[in-house]
Amino acid sequence: MPARLRASWTLALLLTAAPVAAQPAADWLTPYREPAARLIGAALADDAAWERLAYLGDTFGPRLSGSPNLEAAIAWATETMRADGLEQVRAEPVLVPHWVRGRESVEILDPIVRPLVMLGLGGSIGTPAEGLEAEALVVSSFDDLERRAADAKGRIVVFNVPYTSYGETVRYRSDGASRAARHGAVAMLLRSVGPTGLRTPHTGQMRYLEDAPRIPAAALAAEDAQQLARMQARGQRIRLRLRMEAQTLPDTESANVVGEITGRERPEEVVVVACHFDSWDVGTGAMDDGGGCIAAWEAVRLMKRLNLRPRRTVRVVLYTNEENGLRGGLAYRDRHRESLANHVLMIESDAGVFRPLGFGFSGSPPARDIVTRIATLLEGIDASRIGPSGGGADIGPSVAAAGIPAMSLDVEGSRYFVYHHTPADTVDRLDAQDLAKCVAAMAVMSYVAADLPERLPGGATPGGN
Amino acid sequence: MPARLRASWTLALLLTAAPVAAQPAADWLTPYREPAARLIGAALADDAAWERLAYLGDTFGPRLSGSPNLEAAIAWATETMRADGLEQVRAEPVLVPHWVRGRESVEILDPIVRPLVMLGLGGSIGTPAEGLEAEALVVSSFDDLERRAADAKGRIVVFNVPYTSYGETVRYRSDGASRAARHGAVAMLLRSVGPTGLRTPHTGQMRYLEDAPRIPAAALAAEDAQQLARMQARGQRIRLRLRMEAQTLPDTESANVVGEITGRERPEEVVVVACHFDSWDVGTGAMDDGGGCIAAWEAVRLMKRLNLRPRRTVRVVLYTNEENGLRGGLAYRDRHRESLANHVLMIESDAGVFRPLGFGFSGSPPARDIVTRIATLLEGIDASRIGPSGGGADIGPSVAAAGIPAMSLDVEGSRYFVYHHTPADTVDRLDAQDLAKCVAAMAVMSYVAADLPERLPGGATPGGN
Repeated sequence: MPARLRASWTLALLLTAAPVAAQPAADWLTPYREPAARLIGAALADDAAWERLAYLGDTFGPRLSGSPNLEAAIAWATETMRADGLEQVRAEPVLVPHWVRGRESVEILDPIVRPLVMLGLGGSIGTPAEGLEAEALVVSSFDDLERRAADAKGRIVVFNVPYTSYGETVRYRSDGASRAARHGAVAMLLRSVGPTGLRTPHTGQMRYLEDAPRIPAAALAAEDAQQLARMQARGQRIRLRLRMEAQTLPDTESANVVGEITGRERPEEVVVVACHFDSWDVGTGAMDDGGGCIAAWEAVRLMKRLNLRPRRTVRVVLYTNEENGLRGGLAYRDRHRESLANHVLMIESDAGVFRPLGFGFSGSPPARDIVTRIATLLEGIDASRIGPSGGGADIGPSVAAAGIPAMSLDVEGSRYFVYHHTPADTVDRLDAQDLAKCVAAMAVMSYVAADLPERLPGGATPGGN
Repeated sequence: MPARLRASWTLALLLTAAPVAAQPAADWLTPYREPAARLIGAALADDAAWERLAYLGDTFGPRLSGSPNLEAAIAWATETMRADGLEQVRAEPVLVPHWVRGRESVEILDPIVRPLVMLGLGGSIGTPAEGLEAEALVVSSFDDLERRAADAKGRIVVFNVPYTSYGETVRYRSDGASRAARHGAVAMLLRSVGPTGLRTPHTGQMRYLEDAPRIPAAALAAEDAQQLARMQARGQRIRLRLRMEAQTLPDTESANVVGEITGRERPEEVVVVACHFDSWDVGTGAMDDGGGCIAAWEAVRLMKRLNLRPRRTVRVVLYTNEENGLRGGLAYRDRHRESLANHVLMIESDAGVFRPLGFGFSGSPPARDIVTRIATLLEGIDASRIGPSGGGADIGPSVAAAGIPAMSLDVEGSRYFVYHHTPADTVDRLDAQDLAKCVAAMAVMSYVAADLPERLPGGATPGGN
C-alpha cells in the first residue's frame, strides 16, 4: 500500500473506531483525537524509523560501552537530532566501564578434538594466554552443584540448565562463576540463557561475589552444553581448553544523548521517552535496544515535524551503558536530581520493537486512570492495553529517587529472548510496520501526557513499584 | 509413556487400524501384517536410534571426506554392525576428494571495520596468506551481474539472492564464482542458500567452470549479505578483506560401510537401504545424513533382533562422500556392476529424519502398485503415502545403470533447509519418536519388498526416472 494511502486509511480507522459523538461532552480526551491520529498516521506513512535503525546498525555496528563504535554512534545521534530540529540537544557526559572481549575459544580436547560455540560473559576475567585446561563437571542446577561439590575442585563447571524463563535462568549467568569458584572450580561455562537457537550463544553480564575467587566465565550454545551433558552421562571424562583475552580497562567517557521539544506553557515540567543506546558487542543491538531508541527519538521528531508542541517538555534520552553498568541511568538521576520532582512521567522502550500491545504502568491509581484513557487513542493500532506495572532499567534510578510515574512500552515478546545478546540481534528481526506502530504509541502517549491541562498526578503505586 | 507400553499400544493400533478380516482372502499382504507390526512396535519402543545418532555426532563430530573423523566413524560403524549381528559386514574402499577448510574470515574494512559471518564453499581455492582486499559489488541475480559486468573487474562480487527454493538458489552457490570470474571478479561471496536463520551461514559444494579463472568463494549469513546490499544502496563504497586457507589435498582412502541380513531363499537378490555417512565439516551431520544412516542401519538391526529373515537379502549401505564428490555412489555401482541386475529395490533416506510421510517411488507401474500396497502397512504411523518419484544421490548411479526401482524416504521437510549444511545440523533438531518412525518405515518397506513371493517387477518408469 502506498505510504500516503496507508496514512489516510489509518486516520479513517482511528476516527471510525472511536467516534467523538460516543464520548461524553467536554471530555478532556476529545481534543487529543486529532493530534493522536496525525501522529499515528505520520508514523505509519513510511519506513523511516526502520531505515534509520538499519543505518545505525550498518554504520556503527555493535555499541558496547567503552567502544569507539558507541562514541561514534553517540556523536551521530547528537548531530542528527540537531538536524531533525530537536531542541536543547546535548550529550551529557557519563563515565562508563570498559570491558573488552578479545579473542576467545572453548574446545573439547579429549575424547574428541572439537571447537564449541561460545561467548565470554561481560565482566569476566580472561584466562592465561596459553589458555586453561581442565576436566569438565556438568551440573544441572545450583543444587546439583552442591551435591557434587567435592568433584568441582580444579574442574571447569558447566551449568547445563534448561531455559525456562529469563528470570529463572539468568541467575546462573550472574552468579554461576562465583558459586562454582567457592568449590574450587577453575572456570565456569553455562548453557546460554535463551531458547535453543541455531548453535546461537548468548552473552550478558556476570558478577563476582566477594567470597569467591574470580574465575573466567562464558556461555556455550545450548546444543554444545547438551553435548557435554550427554558425554558425561555416558561416563566419558571430558577435557576442555578455554581461552579468553577478556579484560576490564579503566573507565572511559561516554554520554547520554538528550533532545527535547520544549513545552509551550510549562517548559520546566518534563515527560521523558527513554531507551538505552549501548548494546552488547556481538550483534548490532537492533532490538536491544537500538529499536527502542529509534522509537523514542522518532516520537519526538514526529511532534516537531507536525508542529505539535505540548504544554510541557517532551525529552528523549538515549541512555548509555545499560548493559554492563547502568551508569547512564545513575548519572541522569544525579545530574538532574534537583529537577526530578518536575518529571511528570518517564517511559522506556527496552523490550524489543515488535508489535506493540500497549504500556506497563507504575504510579498512583488516579494517574493510571488517566493513562488508561490516553491509551484508548491507540485502539486503532491495537496498542491500548495498560499493564499492571511499568518502568525500565535506565529510568529506574530516577523513578525510584523521586517516585515518578513510570511506563514501559509493552510488545509481543515471544521472540525477544531468541535474539537477546546474540550475534543475531540485527535489524532483520524487526518489521518496519511494527516499529512504526511502536513510534506511534510512544508519540501519542508522551504527547498527550505532556499536554494534559492538569499535570499527571504523582504518588506511589499502592503496594510498591 | 514407558517404552513397553508405547510398543503394545502401537501394536494394538496397527492391528485395529487394519483388521485382517477386512482384507480379501489369500491377499499376499496379509501375512506381512504381523511382522510389520512387530517391526513398528520394536522401533517405537525406545529411543535407541536417537541415542545412537547422538553418540555418533558427539563422539566423532563432523565427517567430511578425507577427515580422520569420518574414517574413525566408519571404523566404529563397521565394528558396531558386526556387534549388532549383521552379516557380511565390510568396508568397501573408495578413493575420495580431500578438501580442507582451514582458517577463514571476511571483514568489512571500510567504511566500518566489522567481521562478517561466513563459511567457505567446498571445493573453493584459498586466498593468498595475507588475504585478498577489494571493493564489493553487490548484485541480486545473474541478470543483474550481466548488467553490471563492467563494474565487476577487480571486485568481490556478492550475490545477494533471496532464498526461494533450494533448486532455484543453489545455482548461485554452484556457478556464482565462475560467472563472476568471467567478468574479472577476484572473489565471490553469496547470501547463504537457505532461509534466514540466526546469522547462520550455509556451506556446500561449488564448482569451477572451465572458461573462467578460479577465484575463492564463500557464503555469508543472509543478514550480512543484506547489510552489504543496504550499504551499497546508500551509495557507500564497501572495502572487504577475505582470508581463506582452503585447499584441495590429494585424494584419500575412505569406504562404503555395508552390512546385511542374507536372504533365506534368494540371497543373491538384494534390497538396499541407503544413506550417506559423510557430512560437511561444520555441524555433526545429524540430519544430513547421519539420521538417514541410523534409520537404514536400525531397520536391518531390528529384523535381525526380531529374527525376521526375508527371502532375499536386505543390505544397508552407508555411502561415503556424497557431499563433495559422490564417489561412494559411483564406487558401489562399479564394484557391484555384475550384480546390479539382482538389485530388486534401492531405498535412500537423505531428506532428514523428521516425521515420515511415506516414500517417493520411481519404477514400473506394477511395482508401484505393489509398494503402494506395502505402504498401507505404515498407515498406523501415518507414513503410507507413495509419491510420484523417488531415488537418491548415492543410489543414483546404480539405479541409472541398471534401471533398478528406487525409493526415497519422504519426511515433513519444512525445517530441512534451515539446518542444511550449517553448524546447527546437530541431533538437537531431531525428535526421537520421529526418527523411530523413520526406522519403522524403512524396516517395513525393505523387509516386505525383500520377502515378496515374487520379485518386485523392474523396468523403467513411464516418462523416465
